[in-house]
Amino acid sequence: MAIERGCKMTLMDEARKGRITPEIERVARDEGIKPEKLARLVAEGKVVIPRNVRREDIVPRGIGKFMSTKINANVGTSREYICIEEEIEKVRVAEKYGADAIMDLSTGGDLDRIRKELMNHTKLPFGTVPIYQSAMEKDAVVNMTSDDMFNTVRKHAEDGVDFMTIHAGVNLNSLERLKNSERILDVVSRGGAFLIGWMIHNGEDNPFYREFDYLLEILKEYDVTISLGDGMRPGCINDASDRAKFMEFIILGELTRRAREAGVQAMVEGPGHVPLDEVEISVTSMKKITDEAPLYLLGPLVTDIAPGYDHIVGAIGGAVAGMHGADFICMVTPSEHLALPGVDHIREGVIITKIAAHVADTVKEGQRERARELDRQMAIARKELNWERQFELAIDRERAEEIWHGRKSRTKACSMCGDICAIQLVKSALNKS
Amino acid sequence: MAIERGCKMTLMDEARKGRITPEIERVARDEGIKPEKLARLVAEGKVVIPRNVRREDIVPRGIGKFMSTKINANVGTSREYICIEEEIEKVRVAEKYGADAIMDLSTGGDLDRIRKELMNHTKLPFGTVPIYQSAMEKDAVVNMTSDDMFNTVRKHAEDGVDFMTIHAGVNLNSLERLKNSERILDVVSRGGAFLIGWMIHNGEDNPFYREFDYLLEILKEYDVTISLGDGMRPGCINDASDRAKFMEFIILGELTRRAREAGVQAMVEGPGHVPLDEVEISVTSMKKITDEAPLYLLGPLVTDIAPGYDHIVGAIGGAVAGMHGADFICMVTPSEHLALPGVDHIREGVIITKIAAHVADTVKEGQRERARELDRQMAIARKELNWERQFELAIDRERAEEIWHGRKSRTKACSMCGDICAIQLVKSALNKS
Repeated sequence: MAIERGCKMTLMDEARKGRITPEIERVARDEGIKPEKLARLVAEGKVVIPRNVRREDIVPRGIGKFMSTKINANVGTSREYICIEEEIEKVRVAEKYGADAIMDLSTGGDLDRIRKELMNHTKLPFGTVPIYQSAMEKDAVVNMTSDDMFNTVRKHAEDGVDFMTIHAGVNLNSLERLKNSERILDVVSRGGAFLIGWMIHNGEDNPFYREFDYLLEILKEYDVTISLGDGMRPGCINDASDRAKFMEFIILGELTRRAREAGVQAMVEGPGHVPLDEVEISVTSMKKITDEAPLYLLGPLVTDIAPGYDHIVGAIGGAVAGMHGADFICMVTPSEHLALPGVDHIREGVIITKIAAHVADTVKEGQRERARELDRQMAIARKELNWERQFELAIDRERAEEIWHGRKSRTKACSMCGDICAIQLVKSALNKS
Repeated sequence: MAIERGCKMTLMDEARKGRITPEIERVARDEGIKPEKLARLVAEGKVVIPRNVRREDIVPRGIGKFMSTKINANVGTSREYICIEEEIEKVRVAEKYGADAIMDLSTGGDLDRIRKELMNHTKLPFGTVPIYQSAMEKDAVVNMTSDDMFNTVRKHAEDGVDFMTIHAGVNLNSLERLKNSERILDVVSRGGAFLIGWMIHNGEDNPFYREFDYLLEILKEYDVTISLGDGMRPGCINDASDRAKFMEFIILGELTRRAREAGVQAMVEGPGHVPLDEVEISVTSMKKITDEAPLYLLGPLVTDIAPGYDHIVGAIGGAVAGMHGADFICMVTPSEHLALPGVDHIREGVIITKIAAHVADTVKEGQRERARELDRQMAIARKELNWERQFELAIDRERAEEIWHGRKSRTKACSMCGDICAIQLVKSALNKS
């Protein structure tokens, strides 16, 4: 058995025995929750704490029910822009501004070396999409063998990758629903597209679906968390919430159950592009179908017409999705739909996604009080016109200070109102009365 | 009677007679609604079309039920930063990037001259807050007389101002509720603070409330739309949706009815700072209490801890508020809570508020189909990798092009994926199958 060679017991197995591992202890402390309660949530699969047994020095993060909303930052080269130093800088900046996890989506250059270098530069949970590498190492995507696919998963697991996106819900069933759909943009998931191309060309089902138990064995050996990929995600709001997407969710719900049975932590990825009035139903139906698997969302983007501002469009969707139960939000950058992001766009994307996550936390069961305390502190600092304290509490202190200093007031107030500051006027009027 | 000297019939009066005025005709065309239906909505006060009889050359905008979500840009000097050229440039930029109305909130310099200059530079509906000028022209705010207040309203009306914010809901009743409240930040509305300071010092009720009929006479003479100000708006999410705020809304609901009876168009202003899960109840209760008066929101801001990014915080709140029925959203800039905004921040604020308004329109009764058609066109342009068309459809073409050109791909696709573009892969796979 593979298990004998690596991990004796996964974190999920341990939690099921009621053991409070160091990861559970640490996450419980960070989240303000009792370790025993967290262990139960991990045992049930409602919270995941991605952590490869080979990964040393990781700062674990809890993703799921009652946890604060987490954010992921995607980094990585493209086929045409390959610069390891820049990618390392992206990791550094993402971590500095509050990312909770890093995913390496590289598709260009020496992929093994890039992955290892990036992992060496962060203590955050680290994720990959192994199918990218399997596809890139062939002259044509369709020439991958199923062995290539599983071998890449194993290689990444051996390297210590904590969580992997695997599009196991792209199968003959969901593909049939896609063919019968009326989408404008059929598939925009890169991993999904590779697998669909492969399935059609080779006339076979997706190996990750067909041999899902084998996949789980590999993941279990290293205690890798599976992130069940959103291969059928809509690419525009017109295509949202259709039959192909719901079909994939049903499959992902079944696969979640199988992963849990095997003691492998699983989360589920969701769209993508969703109109604002469908975000609630989208999130709640996914949570229901997957029996409350931690939900990892890409956005959702609630309009298609704002290229250059998709980080903001994603923050609108992400905050609302978080309010309804999304647990893990993937950063969107201003470059989305336009180009490979540079370091500045990673910074902007992380900060803005962090704002959306905090907004969600202020209304989320389990996190509401803790999150609102920050807002309360800021309100008190504003009442006192205590600028230093306001900067301390700001999500991005540097930017707040820069704007304030850019147009300073001679008074204690800001340059919007100066000596006619409403806060001061009413404070003195009420005290006199 | 004042009416004899100026406007014979207000737009509302005309609409009640079923007359299709040029303003109604123009707005109906812009909004894709039948002029007769729009005239009924104006007659009922569910849509306002601000337009002073003295204002020439205005491009009218409809605000309210079944209309697209409109956005306002605030400009104006402060006590310490006074530069007319900069304010004119702000008006130009706001109009260029899609503002539907301009408000001059100047509190520093020659206020009459600034107002006239700014109005000369735009054809958009133009609004003011007359109490600012009344207060600034005295050595101390509390020394204003009620004549000063009404005279400023008249002066602005004579100058052609189309809509005015008047905090008539700040009265002895709502002030009592404020005193009994447990707010951190009592009052953050500048106009509200002036009036509360004045009421407490002079031991009298707010003249705008006490002599509301006289106020309506002046407004009616020039057919000015009243924007019933949000003087009790909460200044942090901790203070949201409290008794003082609801008390003011009740008063504003009553005053809306009186304005409608007098044939004066009225809209109602709302908060402010509101936690995300209270936005729906906040908007729907306001709509109910005011019998569907057009609702003009400042934000709402859904967290307090992101100074420097309040435009984004406001976009999250604004999109959700719009989904639930907000009609008119005031732009928030990155400078909010920190400084008087410069031209660049006006630009950023307008664009991002425009995105929120569009997101609202994609889910709003009456605008949904028209708004979504833009998203559909963008999706088609993306499928075809037609970049020129994508830029054409983008809310901010310049920024989208800049990012795309910054990291161009050698391929037809973008530099994120290049030759492994999902859209292209699946298009060719599905066509072959």
